[in-house]
Amino acid sequence: ADIVVLPGDGIGPEVTAAAVEVLRAVGQRYGHDFRFEEKLIGGAAIDATGEALPADTLAAAQRADAVLLGAVGGPKWSDPKAPVRPEQGLLAIRKALGLYANLRPVKPHPAALGASPIKPHLLNGVDLMVVRELTGGIYFGQKQRTAGSDGNESASDLCEYSTAEIERVVRRACTLARTRRGRVTSVDKANVLETSRLWREVATRVVRDEFPDVQLEHQLVDSMAMHLLAKPREYDVIVTENMFGDILTDEASMLAGSLGLLPSASLGGGRVGLYEPIHGSAPDIAGRGIANPYATILSTALLLRHSLGLEDEARCVEKAVSGALDSGVFTADLAPGGRGASTRQATAAVLEQLQ
Amino acid sequence: ADIVVLPGDGIGPEVTAAAVEVLRAVGQRYGHDFRFEEKLIGGAAIDATGEALPADTLAAAQRADAVLLGAVGGPKWSDPKAPVRPEQGLLAIRKALGLYANLRPVKPHPAALGASPIKPHLLNGVDLMVVRELTGGIYFGQKQRTAGSDGNESASDLCEYSTAEIERVVRRACTLARTRRGRVTSVDKANVLETSRLWREVATRVVRDEFPDVQLEHQLVDSMAMHLLAKPREYDVIVTENMFGDILTDEASMLAGSLGLLPSASLGGGRVGLYEPIHGSAPDIAGRGIANPYATILSTALLLRHSLGLEDEARCVEKAVSGALDSGVFTADLAPGGRGASTRQATAAVLEQLQ
Ligand SMILES: CC(C)[C@H](C(=O)O)[C@@H](O)C(=O)O
Ligand SMILES: CC(C)[C@H](C(=O)O)[C@@H](O)C(=O)O
Repeated sequence: ADIVVLPGDGIGPEVTAAAVEVLRAVGQRYGHDFRFEEKLIGGAAIDATGEALPADTLAAAQRADAVLLGAVGGPKWSDPKAPVRPEQGLLAIRKALGLYANLRPVKPHPAALGASPIKPHLLNGVDLMVVRELTGGIYFGQKQRTAGSDGNESASDLCEYSTAEIERVVRRACTLARTRRGRVTSVDKANVLETSRLWREVATRVVRDEFPDVQLEHQLVDSMAMHLLAKPREYDVIVTENMFGDILTDEASMLAGSLGLLPSASLGGGRVGLYEPIHGSAPDIAGRGIANPYATILSTALLLRHSLGLEDEARCVEKAVSGALDSGVFTADLAPGGRGASTRQATAAVLEQLQ
Repeated sequence: ADIVVLPGDGIGPEVTAAAVEVLRAVGQRYGHDFRFEEKLIGGAAIDATGEALPADTLAAAQRADAVLLGAVGGPKWSDPKAPVRPEQGLLAIRKALGLYANLRPVKPHPAALGASPIKPHLLNGVDLMVVRELTGGIYFGQKQRTAGSDGNESASDLCEYSTAEIERVVRRACTLARTRRGRVTSVDKANVLETSRLWREVATRVVRDEFPDVQLEHQLVDSMAMHLLAKPREYDVIVTENMFGDILTDEASMLAGSLGLLPSASLGGGRVGLYEPIHGSAPDIAGRGIANPYATILSTALLLRHSLGLEDEARCVEKAVSGALDSGVFTADLAPGGRGASTRQATAAVLEQLQ
């Protein structure tokens, strides 16, 4: 299998290196030939080529079986007047590969409950999967800046959704729900937004016509932001549009104790998927060897499962991370107050579990 | 002072009745003449007049010193194909009165920490104020529905902000910060949205030029959704656009244990302000006499403070609610598992503290 690795910026190179090591070990253990090709994206790509997503990177990704990404961005490139921003590379590759469904599983590990701001008794048995629409909505609609009179400038962003865009991501959510507890919560703001009213109609119709066995519930995004904290156990699959998904998944990460434990898979109609931790590039700790590699390693489990169809191997990686946590190997983000394990130590703990 | 009361739907009539009783008691104690006039809004107005905000209601509000609102909406009026929805009444009155700044204070009461999903040690000393922009953004931009080919419909919502709209709400946030801890956190999604980039530029400039003594920090909305839970104590005033404010304040309500404790004030350039609990109409418990009246009663404290300039009276109401909670009078939303106090009992407890 051909895997394109996009380390990106900040701690990206450190966490992808750790994840590649784990994939190599899995390949050896199960007798697979994983080939890795490293390419530029984000700030690193801007520095080298002037572009956040060089054509060469995209071409490699399009030829590959899967893409493993670290993170992009950092203060170096965040001048608001800069012509290109690292994040554009990420948005562009999601769009160009047609990765419309971003899967973000949240299943708190018992060993990490101490790091969560949520009361532990609410977290027992939480096992939810957010399916975030990833190539539409306000992220990709027309953006404008208009100079007005008297220096009164105006800016706008258009949020757009079509029936077809909603259908395909709802179908993906329902298909996943069938392999889980059969429940889908669709999140919108249908009391205010026209896109949300279309979203609600289409979700209702898709479930009624194609997934009558799936139990569908609608929630307003503001209520969902509460219920996610007050009764997280009640949710199975949550499907929502791009911006709401961005906010709700970062919020949901707090259930798991740290953003540093949460992987994601971005899938489309084609074969290639993109796998990345949901955390950012954490420029403040970059290069210090202390980044938490678990989320990126768990992203390789999703890669094995969704792009390579290697379910046993995926579970093996998930068990190895779980084992490392069970044995108390916590990076700094998981060990509030204390000294954390290094990226190296955490990776070694996972590799040891893989033996 | 002339106060227009808009009970609205669901539990709205029950909680506004409780709040009016408290205002009457305050008037008596301090020798003020509060005059109340009741008008229709939301579903109740649709049933009676076909409109969610009858002209007569708006005219009364425009003449008044302050407006006290319960809540709007309910299943009866939520058919997606209905020509008018109750929420339109609320959005229309906010817009027509020019109430661009929605103040939502969050200061968890010790007695309610048991009801919060957040670990109590994180909540000690939390005292934050969200200032949500209320008359702009995606709530009020153009909405469209377009039929495409093959039944592929499209919907869109336009998010728009002008310099002037951002300036005035940021100024309000900074002015409030000066009476508090002097810190403002401005929340946007500047790595993706053009409106957010304008927001960030304007906020930066307003603080630099007009409030150099205020300490400004920018946060991305997704990070904010995490930090709000992980380190709520660190925030003082949070200022953000309409939709982000809607989501973040419902999330923040979980810090306080229950939405049932959170008041809000919506202020504009003029004299009249609108005061409402941040909770909804809770149709499931309407008419049963068990709704939590505290948020609406606390909203009258904001009314006394911001529209009538009666600071002592405002504090007196806040202390009375605090006293009622201290003495253990919890409605069902605050007493998980147990039987809660009725609306009547909770109101009586507040009135008793007012003696
Ligand atoms: C970096 C940013 C553009 C991105 C997003 O908003 O999609 C990130 O927050 C994420 O969630 O993957
Ligand atoms: C009812 C709805 C339109 C409203 C809003 O989104 O503004 C409510 O959620 C609120 O926060 O006051």
